[in-house]
Amino acid sequence: MAKRTRKVDPKQARAPATTGDDVAITALKLAPAPLAPDMAAYFAKCEEKLGFVPNVLKAYAFDAAKLSAFVAMYNDLMLAPSGLSKLEREMIAVAVSSQNRCYYCLVAHGAAVRQLSGDPPLGELMAMNYRAARLSKRERAMLDFAVKLTAEPWLVEEEDREALRRAGFSNRDIWDIAAVAGFFNMSNRVASATDMRPNSVYHGQAR
Amino acid sequence: MAKRTRKVDPKQARAPATTGDDVAITALKLAPAPLAPDMAAYFAKCEEKLGFVPNVLKAYAFDAAKLSAFVAMYNDLMLAPSGLSKLEREMIAVAVSSQNRCYYCLVAHGAAVRQLSGDPPLGELMAMNYRAARLSKRERAMLDFAVKLTAEPWLVEEEDREALRRAGFSNRDIWDIAAVAGFFNMSNRVASATDMRPNSVYHGQAR
Amino acid sequence: MAKRTRKVDPKQARAPATTGDDVAITALKLAPAPLAPDMAAYFAKCEEKLGFVPNVLKAYAFDAAKLSAFVAMYNDLMLAPSGLSKLEREMIAVAVSSQNRCYYCLVAHGAAVRQLSGDPPLGELMAMNYRAARLSKRERAMLDFAVKLTAEPWLVEEEDREALRRAGFSNRDIWDIAAVAGFFNMSNRVASATDMRPNSVYHGQAR
Amino acid sequence: MAKRTRKVDPKQARAPATTGDDVAITALKLAPAPLAPDMAAYFAKCEEKLGFVPNVLKAYAFDAAKLSAFVAMYNDLMLAPSGLSKLEREMIAVAVSSQNRCYYCLVAHGAAVRQLSGDPPLGELMAMNYRAARLSKRERAMLDFAVKLTAEPWLVEEEDREALRRAGFSNRDIWDIAAVAGFFNMSNRVASATDMRPNSVYHGQAR
Amino acid sequence: MAKRTRKVDPKQARAPATTGDDVAITALKLAPAPLAPDMAAYFAKCEEKLGFVPNVLKAYAFDAAKLSAFVAMYNDLMLAPSGLSKLEREMIAVAVSSQNRCYYCLVAHGAAVRQLSGDPPLGELMAMNYRAARLSKRERAMLDFAVKLTAEPWLVEEEDREALRRAGFSNRDIWDIAAVAGFFNMSNRVASATDMRPNSVYHGQAR
Amino acid sequence: MAKRTRKVDPKQARAPATTGDDVAITALKLAPAPLAPDMAAYFAKCEEKLGFVPNVLKAYAFDAAKLSAFVAMYNDLMLAPSGLSKLEREMIAVAVSSQNRCYYCLVAHGAAVRQLSGDPPLGELMAMNYRAARLSKRERAMLDFAVKLTAEPWLVEEEDREALRRAGFSNRDIWDIAAVAGFFNMSNRVASATDMRPNSVYHGQAR
Repeated sequence: MAKRTRKVDPKQARAPATTGDDVAITALKLAPAPLAPDMAAYFAKCEEKLGFVPNVLKAYAFDAAKLSAFVAMYNDLMLAPSGLSKLEREMIAVAVSSQNRCYYCLVAHGAAVRQLSGDPPLGELMAMNYRAARLSKRERAMLDFAVKLTAEPWLVEEEDREALRRAGFSNRDIWDIAAVAGFFNMSNRVASATDMRPNSVYHGQAR
Repeated sequence: MAKRTRKVDPKQARAPATTGDDVAITALKLAPAPLAPDMAAYFAKCEEKLGFVPNVLKAYAFDAAKLSAFVAMYNDLMLAPSGLSKLEREMIAVAVSSQNRCYYCLVAHGAAVRQLSGDPPLGELMAMNYRAARLSKRERAMLDFAVKLTAEPWLVEEEDREALRRAGFSNRDIWDIAAVAGFFNMSNRVASATDMRPNSVYHGQAR
Repeated sequence: MAKRTRKVDPKQARAPATTGDDVAITALKLAPAPLAPDMAAYFAKCEEKLGFVPNVLKAYAFDAAKLSAFVAMYNDLMLAPSGLSKLEREMIAVAVSSQNRCYYCLVAHGAAVRQLSGDPPLGELMAMNYRAARLSKRERAMLDFAVKLTAEPWLVEEEDREALRRAGFSNRDIWDIAAVAGFFNMSNRVASATDMRPNSVYHGQAR
Repeated sequence: MAKRTRKVDPKQARAPATTGDDVAITALKLAPAPLAPDMAAYFAKCEEKLGFVPNVLKAYAFDAAKLSAFVAMYNDLMLAPSGLSKLEREMIAVAVSSQNRCYYCLVAHGAAVRQLSGDPPLGELMAMNYRAARLSKRERAMLDFAVKLTAEPWLVEEEDREALRRAGFSNRDIWDIAAVAGFFNMSNRVASATDMRPNSVYHGQAR
Repeated sequence: MAKRTRKVDPKQARAPATTGDDVAITALKLAPAPLAPDMAAYFAKCEEKLGFVPNVLKAYAFDAAKLSAFVAMYNDLMLAPSGLSKLEREMIAVAVSSQNRCYYCLVAHGAAVRQLSGDPPLGELMAMNYRAARLSKRERAMLDFAVKLTAEPWLVEEEDREALRRAGFSNRDIWDIAAVAGFFNMSNRVASATDMRPNSVYHGQAR
Repeated sequence: MAKRTRKVDPKQARAPATTGDDVAITALKLAPAPLAPDMAAYFAKCEEKLGFVPNVLKAYAFDAAKLSAFVAMYNDLMLAPSGLSKLEREMIAVAVSSQNRCYYCLVAHGAAVRQLSGDPPLGELMAMNYRAARLSKRERAMLDFAVKLTAEPWLVEEEDREALRRAGFSNRDIWDIAAVAGFFNMSNRVASATDMRPNSVYHGQAR
């Protein structure tokens, strides 16, 4: 149903819903540790390429070993060669994060889906209900598996893997779908447990 | 986690996720009935003020009595004087629609929250997880009630009403919260049952 | 298992479970507004035909516009011509209200199913577990759709609509099933939110 | 909402929802074994006092040992001296059966609540949503415990037992609440697994 | 993932998780009643054959009639001739108790599965997730039915019974599956309601 | 209830429930890649210290980068200095894996809890229902947080963190609880998605 009102009613003024998101990145307020040289370089590359360092990296920066392990796993899963495209991996990230209703990951990876696809509503649909999106059979099978694995992992069986194979995925692809879905089930929980806040710049990206 | 890729990978090209949303408004393809004069005027006013007729109105237009009853109830609930601001009513609409994962209502009323509040991330937060938003105690109590009423209506009891009263709501306000939450529990289901598609113009509004 | 005791044990005496149901219709105690002439006539017709005014109407009577909108939508959905019989619409009402465990609607519409069908146990079965009733394939398909739409609306897809079509329902019928199920998802929540109490006369009707 | 129609529409004629309930008592159609003398006497007593033998007894009658064990446990739980009144035990039976949506037990024990209480709507409220009934604090605590134990037994802990003690129940009473709730969790499942059908005479009892 | 530490870290010392399990058998601390002669003989036989009296029997021993009824039903269900092997009945017991997360029954009947099968991991798999075990089609069909009957008894219908028949079960076998599953749905709840503690000797049996 | 049968009934003979667990480690059968020197050394150390290489490592060994990232994160989380003892971290691992019903992780980390605690039933209790274990307030608070974060991460809020602080945990400890719980939410899903099988040697360890 459309909105008939075009202007913000001054009587409805309120503090922004994201107040402080770029300042207090988690509710734990852990002091950052000195960055190791490779991480310092990585942060600098983020600044250069993205214009900012993603808050999740700042959140892990209180401990060098944890930051390093997180970055290594993330970059391998999301950026290394795979039978899944980068967009497909980001679609899994958002559909899983929607099941878990994770604010941080929905914002950051919703932006990624918008950017990689050039189709902003695709990002919204992954966050709202992937079943309502116009998807290829391959995409639908991939997301059905990832979301079932998220919601009821104990019910996943050979028939579920067979459905992926019928949609054209190899065994190696199945690993990658599981690994990406698994990773965001981890990240969603670290973010929710710590009230991690996304960089506010994400909200407007690629709209 | 940020996106490192700025351009759409041509290998990742795909049909938009919203293909056909403005053409086939529901999966039922019911032929429109002639509009009664008051509804024709209402549609014209939508075109003038919004630039388009919301698809939900077109979806109901196959039957004059149903369209008229829907419009009367909607306008009373969302636009008539109330102890709840229009923004508060739209926040309820989106939080309820998030619980029910309704594509149509999340898109259309998410846009309304962005417009009325002038705070685009508030719209996203209502769709993702209202608990992660920075809200006033009043807003939080209102949404807790509306979402509990959506998810487990059989558990709502006097203590839940008392929590609203403690947050400053009158008995009349409680009715309005219940009525708006109830209305979107209806609309979410009509939309999901018919695969109702939102006007694509909503996606980019007030970002 | 049968009851061996035929008389009420005086030691087990207790106040009736419905104490006050006809006096304090909701927990909100909103004062009635003056009835508009058409609504006054409608209430008089209820008194004449039913012997009483249903409490839901009295509950809405604090606000003329809300009462009018509710009555218009209710009468169109439940009484206007449709591919669904009136009994079918009432069966949906009760099965949906059973999923939501709504006292008001189960009592009032359970009575309606008993009356319209002339088969009192049918009313009970809709309230207890519609799957245990001896139903036609058409009735079963209709209720399966309505209850899935109630419990997990985000999972309803084209295959669910196809199942209705296979059972003989037209696209217009599907709308009506969705609209009735949607309406009671609204009414159940307004009733639960306000602790709406059914007229006690319903309990004994058409047994 | 009231029913405006007083007569059964002949176009809406359908076979009763309970067709065959007194003939084919379960879907398993197990042939009865000869009754042992004590059970023959018990059946005769049922006929004399109730006018019929409850179908659950006929369902168990395919095996003398099973029938005997069931009757012994049932009679001890529901009829032997206890800190719980017979009505309280029947209220637990119905509230548990409502959680499990068991047709047989809701019908048979709903009738028992109506009879023992002399308050027919109490039987309906136990079947619909016990939270909507006007109950004493003792009754409410008892049913809260029984229904939590039914729905999420793994969450029951000392605090739940303490709530019963605060409501005046002894440790022995707590056992009885647990045992009655447990028994109907068993019976509900035997009945649902076998599609056990209640004697149709129950439907009209004590209305 | 393997354990790299072989010794108990003294800094990690803590009281055993089962402290008091053989002393305070339930949280209700009901004083035992004198045993009837047949029950005294039964307890003696347990001591002789098992080396101990199972705590569940001690828990029921506060009341002679309840103890007697429990033992009669238990022995008939688990030990009398049946189309189900004793191992199959114990597998149902553990899979049901896993769904209900019942400490007492998982420990006592997990030991039974280990003993009867001579395959200790089978006991663990029934307690963890029966779907991960290598099972025959017959076993799998039996456990699927028992666990669905436990989790969502209201959804069990003729198609579920047909699946058992296709797996080779007779109608009488279906009764036995239902009755064993039902019985542990009762016992799980009595145990959880009373915090019943298993004999600690079970933990190490048949490993 | 005790087992009366001491020997395996030959008629009940069946293939072990873990047939093939040490041979076909996952359902994906991905060929191992050559081990990098540091991983070869790590595997050798496992053989030396544990007597075997945990199957999860073999499962990841199809890809050097994935194996390396997994090992780095695992070793940091579970073995590096922390305000949580190693036993506490393993208790979280098992309680989370119980919520997700993950066969691999319950077996491998159940063994770890048994070994580290020297209290075998503690391992079982973490797998069955941690609420039934005799725990310190600190342990209980830690597991309540980890399991809520697993089951309903969207509901975790400041009050949950406050409960941990009241139990003596620092902000850094809260991170570690969240990170361990998150990690096993990932591992559980990778294991369930691929049907990962634990080394059979775990079953008998530290009983």
